[in-house]
Amino acid sequence: MAAPESGARRSGSTRRQFLLGGTVAGVGAAAAIGIDLALTPSITTVASPSAPLNGDEIVPFHGAHQAGIDTDAQAHGTFIALDLHDDVDRDQLRRLMRVLSDDAERLTQGRAALADSEPELALTPARLTVTFAFGPGFVSRAGGQAPAWLQPLPAFGVDQLRDEFNDGDLLLQIAADDPVTVAHATRMLLKDARSFADVRWTQQGFRRAYGSVAPGTTMRNLFGQVDGTTNPRPGTTHFDDVVWSSDGWLAGGTGMVVRRIHMNLDKWDKLDRPGREQSVGRSLTSGAPLTGTAEHDEPDFAAKTTIGFPVIPEFSHMRRARPDDETQRIFRRAYNYDERPIGTEVSDSGLIFVSFQADIDAQFTPIQRRLDELDLLNEWTTPIGSAVFAVPPGCSPGGYIGETLLA
Amino acid sequence: MAAPESGARRSGSTRRQFLLGGTVAGVGAAAAIGIDLALTPSITTVASPSAPLNGDEIVPFHGAHQAGIDTDAQAHGTFIALDLHDDVDRDQLRRLMRVLSDDAERLTQGRAALADSEPELALTPARLTVTFAFGPGFVSRAGGQAPAWLQPLPAFGVDQLRDEFNDGDLLLQIAADDPVTVAHATRMLLKDARSFADVRWTQQGFRRAYGSVAPGTTMRNLFGQVDGTTNPRPGTTHFDDVVWSSDGWLAGGTGMVVRRIHMNLDKWDKLDRPGREQSVGRSLTSGAPLTGTAEHDEPDFAAKTTIGFPVIPEFSHMRRARPDDETQRIFRRAYNYDERPIGTEVSDSGLIFVSFQADIDAQFTPIQRRLDELDLLNEWTTPIGSAVFAVPPGCSPGGYIGETLLA
Repeated sequence: MAAPESGARRSGSTRRQFLLGGTVAGVGAAAAIGIDLALTPSITTVASPSAPLNGDEIVPFHGAHQAGIDTDAQAHGTFIALDLHDDVDRDQLRRLMRVLSDDAERLTQGRAALADSEPELALTPARLTVTFAFGPGFVSRAGGQAPAWLQPLPAFGVDQLRDEFNDGDLLLQIAADDPVTVAHATRMLLKDARSFADVRWTQQGFRRAYGSVAPGTTMRNLFGQVDGTTNPRPGTTHFDDVVWSSDGWLAGGTGMVVRRIHMNLDKWDKLDRPGREQSVGRSLTSGAPLTGTAEHDEPDFAAKTTIGFPVIPEFSHMRRARPDDETQRIFRRAYNYDERPIGTEVSDSGLIFVSFQADIDAQFTPIQRRLDELDLLNEWTTPIGSAVFAVPPGCSPGGYIGETLLA
Repeated sequence: MAAPESGARRSGSTRRQFLLGGTVAGVGAAAAIGIDLALTPSITTVASPSAPLNGDEIVPFHGAHQAGIDTDAQAHGTFIALDLHDDVDRDQLRRLMRVLSDDAERLTQGRAALADSEPELALTPARLTVTFAFGPGFVSRAGGQAPAWLQPLPAFGVDQLRDEFNDGDLLLQIAADDPVTVAHATRMLLKDARSFADVRWTQQGFRRAYGSVAPGTTMRNLFGQVDGTTNPRPGTTHFDDVVWSSDGWLAGGTGMVVRRIHMNLDKWDKLDRPGREQSVGRSLTSGAPLTGTAEHDEPDFAAKTTIGFPVIPEFSHMRRARPDDETQRIFRRAYNYDERPIGTEVSDSGLIFVSFQADIDAQFTPIQRRLDELDLLNEWTTPIGSAVFAVPPGCSPGGYIGETLLA
């Protein structure tokens, strides 16, 4: 299967051959591997040097943008919002972000964090990315200028927000194709954050496993719908225009919306397939607009049925979400959630809706406002959490995430 | 990477070529694919026919034993204990198990369940297995003879059991390499079970992702310890002797222990590496006994340090768990858990301990009793849930799980 565009395969066979005692690649490779070697003097299973392991794949940490945005979405994503302690000042924020950036750099490259208590768990990066984003409280504490959109979204009629899933000063998005990797990285980062901040909320999500479906397949949510068909494609000018900010300390960064959308699967069950397709405006099977045959066909909103109704209903999610104004575009990078059901509840499931866009007020809010006014899917979905963050740009070796705000 | 011994790759390329309009394999293959075709008239991403997908791999449903026991452990495992409604009688138990067996057969083979509300989510089996196990209440309701060991384990001093994670009439173990597959299968099974039973508890666990580490690598728990080194190997006489029962309706089945072991990672952090290795009796890096160099080396419990202490301490987990009596062997198939932490808690993590053995009283309980009396690991681990089940044998096409008890 294809490696992600933004990723690179760590010199996996070199590393394994070295560990197995083979003579390879010289000192440079060994030095690059660093702590791995010290901690792994022997391994007891013999991997074929020719079979690359998914777990060895890495996504570069350094760059103009943070990783985890234009990175092909990994199978597992954990989102953690932290509340800063009252006494944390600008100097401490800088210290915090230096420490967390160092952790993230090491862990994403398959190396143990400093003072890693379970360094063996760090040796399988599995495309780990750690993405940091700042809430209004963080920017204010840093004495920085907040973009106008960095505030709670307007209240929507459909919202039934629960404070336990709202807001936060600092967001960590920790994503990888391996759930053990995510658990370990989460733990290491939280250990280093805890002198500065408490956990406000955690959300754990998943998509298809790596290698489970063909690369490039649009994800399906737990309603069975294809979800994200019209997303801008990373690597295109369109994507860059939609996502990256060019403003001040945020230049090279972006705006991030995280909303927890409860999906009432039990109620959805009662809807037949034609009803489901009308509510979305797409075929469930192929994801095609009801006026087309393939997922990426352009919808024909003018098309009418034989008795004169629009083929794609006015109240359908696709019709309502689709902007007439081309500037209202967002990049979605959502995860499913499925929590332990309680009692006679058959499921507690939904979507961790995540979108990136340079200007939340101009790009995201108008879409959500239209969906709030009318969207048949609102019958089965309820936003129960909402948070907005500013994602600072990436950094170079020796730098740290947030330096454009804190330096 | 190697396919699991008990698994088989579905005719993935055939299926994809067919869906892509290629001329392949004839009517037989199409019929075998069944409902897939009706529901997937077109797909919109083009997979290379030569790149097999992990998601297409299947584990046979039918056989002398249920799948999910000697199957190489999948990345994700969900365990659900159900309480039967008071009015469910033997006839209804038979009906329930017929329906659930039919669901399991279809879903594990990558086909939609009958009345599947999201059939597209069923097309990626990803080595899905569904394993059914009966608690004392189920066997009694069926009017069957319960094995003597089918009752709550004796109370152990270390236990701090919470009723929300104890016991249950019917257990479903739903495991696959893809978390979306697990979520969908869980939902379909629970929908069909809900006229008969309520959910008592759910536990969701994970191991390394499929393809993330080399096949055959012993799992590590969230303490970073290798976990399961001395497990019997499926396919050996030793495994068969340890696991499979030959008694009455349970012949070809086994006994199952599910214990939720909370691991205090915050406290574990305060222990240095030598202390951690002493508590387990093994090197953290290699998993080797402290008297050896490789994971599978036999420990030398007689070896002494230069100042006369045992190299492998008497109080170490390995020393205490190791039976002097060779009949006290179990087969472990555990999963990690990592729940959303609350407030200042850095983690809520642990192990869903799962073991299979023909006779729980004779094989499991003596080991646990020794560990209860003395095991340094008890300092950092607390059993908070405990349940015991009888796993009936597998079935043939046309049969259903539980027929030896219910027919």
